[in-house]
Amino acid sequence: MSSKTVAVAGATGLVGHHLLKTLESRNFPVKSLKLLASERSKGKRLTFRGEEIPVEVLTENSFKGVEIALFSAGGGTSKKFTPCAVRDGCVVIDNSSAWRMDPEVPLVVPEVNAAAVRTHHGIIANPNCSTIQMVVVLKPLHDAARIERVVVSTYQAVSGAGINALKELEDQTRAVLEGRDPVCQIFPHQIAFNCIPQIPQSDAFEDDGYSTEEIKMIKETQKIMGDQSIRVTATTVRVPVRTGHSESVNIETRDKLTADRAREILRKAPSVIVQDDLAKQLYPLATSAEGRWETFVGRIREDGSHSRALNLWIVSDNLLKGAAYNAVQIAELL
Amino acid sequence: MSSKTVAVAGATGLVGHHLLKTLESRNFPVKSLKLLASERSKGKRLTFRGEEIPVEVLTENSFKGVEIALFSAGGGTSKKFTPCAVRDGCVVIDNSSAWRMDPEVPLVVPEVNAAAVRTHHGIIANPNCSTIQMVVVLKPLHDAARIERVVVSTYQAVSGAGINALKELEDQTRAVLEGRDPVCQIFPHQIAFNCIPQIPQSDAFEDDGYSTEEIKMIKETQKIMGDQSIRVTATTVRVPVRTGHSESVNIETRDKLTADRAREILRKAPSVIVQDDLAKQLYPLATSAEGRWETFVGRIREDGSHSRALNLWIVSDNLLKGAAYNAVQIAELL
Repeated sequence: MSSKTVAVAGATGLVGHHLLKTLESRNFPVKSLKLLASERSKGKRLTFRGEEIPVEVLTENSFKGVEIALFSAGGGTSKKFTPCAVRDGCVVIDNSSAWRMDPEVPLVVPEVNAAAVRTHHGIIANPNCSTIQMVVVLKPLHDAARIERVVVSTYQAVSGAGINALKELEDQTRAVLEGRDPVCQIFPHQIAFNCIPQIPQSDAFEDDGYSTEEIKMIKETQKIMGDQSIRVTATTVRVPVRTGHSESVNIETRDKLTADRAREILRKAPSVIVQDDLAKQLYPLATSAEGRWETFVGRIREDGSHSRALNLWIVSDNLLKGAAYNAVQIAELL
Repeated sequence: MSSKTVAVAGATGLVGHHLLKTLESRNFPVKSLKLLASERSKGKRLTFRGEEIPVEVLTENSFKGVEIALFSAGGGTSKKFTPCAVRDGCVVIDNSSAWRMDPEVPLVVPEVNAAAVRTHHGIIANPNCSTIQMVVVLKPLHDAARIERVVVSTYQAVSGAGINALKELEDQTRAVLEGRDPVCQIFPHQIAFNCIPQIPQSDAFEDDGYSTEEIKMIKETQKIMGDQSIRVTATTVRVPVRTGHSESVNIETRDKLTADRAREILRKAPSVIVQDDLAKQLYPLATSAEGRWETFVGRIREDGSHSRALNLWIVSDNLLKGAAYNAVQIAELL
């Protein structure tokens, strides 16, 4: 790939930080880098490849001369500014949920549907973190045995809600340990030493009782896998983990898959690492996935309650494969 | 009930503590109370109804004159000492897994199968904590619509592993916050800010890849509900919560149940509190269940992936309804 002029919108956020780190570590051919953020971050400087770059305020005219823009600044910002970027000839890889279900916008996990990138009209959407790690593992199993139904329960890390959420977890944890009342500003309830079955932390629920995170897992899975016949139900839960989403996933397949055969398939799957050695107490963990770009799967078991079902435990770094890393992978496909 | 001579074996443990508290708060007719524990606890004194009672060392002759013994001292201790207690005419309510699947021993959750108590031959088993709270909610739904299959993923509190496990969570949490390496002595991996898909913490796994906790949830559910045709699969996970197990439960029923109908049934169910008002961000939480003896259920949703399935979020205090409270309820049935 020839060197590109790249912009990162939302550069000062947690995912923005990991976007810069991933561009560095993947040695992405950056000709020049533009860092964009809201008015609040004006004057900040971030380091990229040893060089200090000033953060500019994101405006409608920020994208002149930019070839690739990586957006990670929330749905509202994406809705407002991605059309300006596209108008100026830039290809946008958007990490928000703004465009994901737009039929004109490809929703891409490179290990699953890289070819969809070619159909873009200026915007490519990066899926929801909890969906990405699940489909990376499910795709090779679907190819082998056709997945008919998925029942997933998530154990999602606090960093998915941003830097301030991480600080709230830390502050609340200290408060509880010191016998003080924890203060809730970001989360609707105490997250320290608790599990909250609501994601995101505000305006979460639709009329049918599902949260928007749960609906994302259902709809995005079908779109990325390119198969509307895969039925998915989800319960998404925030847990007091800093980074690394864990998922308990039950899949029903058309053809019977043994646990051994599933392990064999997954050992050959791109970006997947099978950690499934119970004698060594080896299985995926959020703490060991943190900082890694792969998706980890273990606890692979045949489900005694169904003749063609498996249980899986899937873990990945929600800021990397779940966000920054997947976005940079998409950029590499261009 | 006439006043009884009661013994508590394992009195100095976390569940032992809650057994004493529950006997007090339920105003159980205790004529005299004997506190039993291992050699390590010799010399300790515990308070019951304002009176200090010395802890005696548990021996084969501890049960002469005792009418009801509440055991919470681990499977090995139960296997060894419950026969002595029964020989001496005592009725044992055993909180360990030692006798639960013995066909001669009733496994009782009073809201579900109180009548089974009558069939005892000296031992009544108290089910596993994660099973109790689930069946309390499932039984009325089963009566209404026949449950055919259950897929459950748990979010289990650290107090289920005892006092030292709670201390390990606290120590590890402080270590992580202070940038030190957390020390693992009880758990096989760091539990602070992590999710461990292994319960119990040692000798967990069977040949088919299921943990003993998962197998308990499968088999005990069928035994308590008195219906071997209910198919159950489980993934049990330890989370960094101090007290209160949460469960994401998907049930498939023979007859269709709407979410509204399920809420209506559960509002009338004994010991169940429906917390399901999403506009108020009201749903069960471990932190609000702590110290309560009821079981809480919310996030009740029809499952779009199956024509006759529901998702539920079930939370209860694992030391109370999951252990001490259920045991005292059984004693009250005698």
